[in-house]
Amino acid sequence: MSVSVEQLQKEIESQLQQLNFPVFPATLYDPLRYTLALGGKRLRPALTLLAAEIFAASKSDAMPAALGLEVFHNFTLLHDDIMDKAPLRRGKPTVHEKWNANVAILSGDAMFVKSCQLMTDVPSSVMPAVMKLFLKTALEVCEGQQLDMDFENRENVSIDEYLHMIRLKTAVLVGACLAIGAQIANASESDINHLYDFGVNLGVAFQLQDDILDVYGDEQKFGKQVGGDIIANKKTFLLLTALNSASGDSLSELQKWMLYKGNDNQEKVNAIKSIYHQLKVRESAEQKMDQLYSEALSHLDALPIKASQTQTLRVLSAMLMARQN
Amino acid sequence: MSVSVEQLQKEIESQLQQLNFPVFPATLYDPLRYTLALGGKRLRPALTLLAAEIFAASKSDAMPAALGLEVFHNFTLLHDDIMDKAPLRRGKPTVHEKWNANVAILSGDAMFVKSCQLMTDVPSSVMPAVMKLFLKTALEVCEGQQLDMDFENRENVSIDEYLHMIRLKTAVLVGACLAIGAQIANASESDINHLYDFGVNLGVAFQLQDDILDVYGDEQKFGKQVGGDIIANKKTFLLLTALNSASGDSLSELQKWMLYKGNDNQEKVNAIKSIYHQLKVRESAEQKMDQLYSEALSHLDALPIKASQTQTLRVLSAMLMARQN
Repeated sequence: MSVSVEQLQKEIESQLQQLNFPVFPATLYDPLRYTLALGGKRLRPALTLLAAEIFAASKSDAMPAALGLEVFHNFTLLHDDIMDKAPLRRGKPTVHEKWNANVAILSGDAMFVKSCQLMTDVPSSVMPAVMKLFLKTALEVCEGQQLDMDFENRENVSIDEYLHMIRLKTAVLVGACLAIGAQIANASESDINHLYDFGVNLGVAFQLQDDILDVYGDEQKFGKQVGGDIIANKKTFLLLTALNSASGDSLSELQKWMLYKGNDNQEKVNAIKSIYHQLKVRESAEQKMDQLYSEALSHLDALPIKASQTQTLRVLSAMLMARQN
Repeated sequence: MSVSVEQLQKEIESQLQQLNFPVFPATLYDPLRYTLALGGKRLRPALTLLAAEIFAASKSDAMPAALGLEVFHNFTLLHDDIMDKAPLRRGKPTVHEKWNANVAILSGDAMFVKSCQLMTDVPSSVMPAVMKLFLKTALEVCEGQQLDMDFENRENVSIDEYLHMIRLKTAVLVGACLAIGAQIANASESDINHLYDFGVNLGVAFQLQDDILDVYGDEQKFGKQVGGDIIANKKTFLLLTALNSASGDSLSELQKWMLYKGNDNQEKVNAIKSIYHQLKVRESAEQKMDQLYSEALSHLDALPIKASQTQTLRVLSAMLMARQN
């Protein structure tokens, strides 16, 4: 384990803050600087650097792509926050709240352009392949966000449809971060694919963990209101599993609480948690998460290298799966 | 003159309609198909194909970039229409009106990704240079749109600032369409630069023509309300020139009408046109336009090729400058 996750995160943070955006027009570039200064765990670029390191690419070759992927991720958050009318991001006002929706749309567009520019700064021999995977992923992330919005207005969503949606919205980017690191290191097609599949499975597991934490997390550590998804009737893995397995009394009870219009949200949260408990919904979610995590790790195991070379990546994955926020 | 502008436009239209977008999710891709089916003159991609032809590239090598640039242009219109709250585009409801703002934001994002994908489909030897110019241009177009919005809220805008804004918002893309065609044909740096400068000057002249047509166009041919810019106090080249050269009575008269809150917009239009007449504002605008057009043509003349080889490009430019809509 030649480098720790913390070292990587620190270095990425420093590089991100050194990205030089023009001063003018301030209404275009200030929101971009603001968004990137909000912080975050910088896990995606850390994955890119780790994948590059595993296959012996230099950090400087992989850094532009790592930064580009983080800028892209932040662009998607910026535009998603407009669509979701989210007032806060990491405890600070969102760009459309602090400025306005037009500023948020346009500075988001500029941020996406900037991310593409960073992706073109990888070594020229691998640039076309990197760009191709990056753009395919970007389009899939748009599809995932659209499906997420579509699901809000749909009566019935199957668990498979939900898993497909989070795969597109969240997981393919995790896979691409890893695969692009491997591409930069000129890894073989098979190794690139294994890292990609590792990342996609890890990404879906990560999102299921998020669904679980929203209900069962520690409010202090989770950093946002526990039960938010329940209050909003958000079609998460938990709710869809409950709707799928409930029948008779438990189903009518669940449907009654989903229609609840009263003010006592805590009562609704407790009632639905109690139905989840009866139906062993948490266990189902954890089982699915564990299965995806095992599937992810099997792709690391399949790499024709010593397990020690993927040690930091395994530590990072374990951190992700054991997280409380 | 081996190919007519009309032939090119027809071929581009057919190729655009053949772009294969996924059916699903419909809320993401339907707005994209709708936007591209609204029509338009397809002048930007025609410029790319003409530039490529001048330097002997095959049409099939240049077509992906031509289409990518048209898709990019339509993406900017889609997002601009949200920001401008425009109800109509080419006489049809805008995407944010027909669907909603969220759909317009996200399908615009997808459209931008698609344009980048098309740009990567040019021959691999020129792809990095093409991509670099394309992304630089995309960022400048964002800057231009932001400046345009900033100017709405500013008291004073100089004519130079206005020309800088339309250069970014409109003209650099015209320059890039030509330069990218030349890049694909492996033209020399100097030839690429001449075509770029030809396009940028032509683009600024084109926008001044637009400002003039908004006041002096034939309503039937112009296809929208003549005088719209005057009614909205839009800081066009004409209004800024008038504010710059007015003094005493003409200045106070102009300022009075800009504050007009009555219902008789035609009276406002007539009054301000009469001030423009006194101040010879139209003549100033036409003079600037002619100067830019001459400057543009001087860059075509500077190319080390026979004038006959740029004949179709000259016909297209002349069409643009003589247009009535």
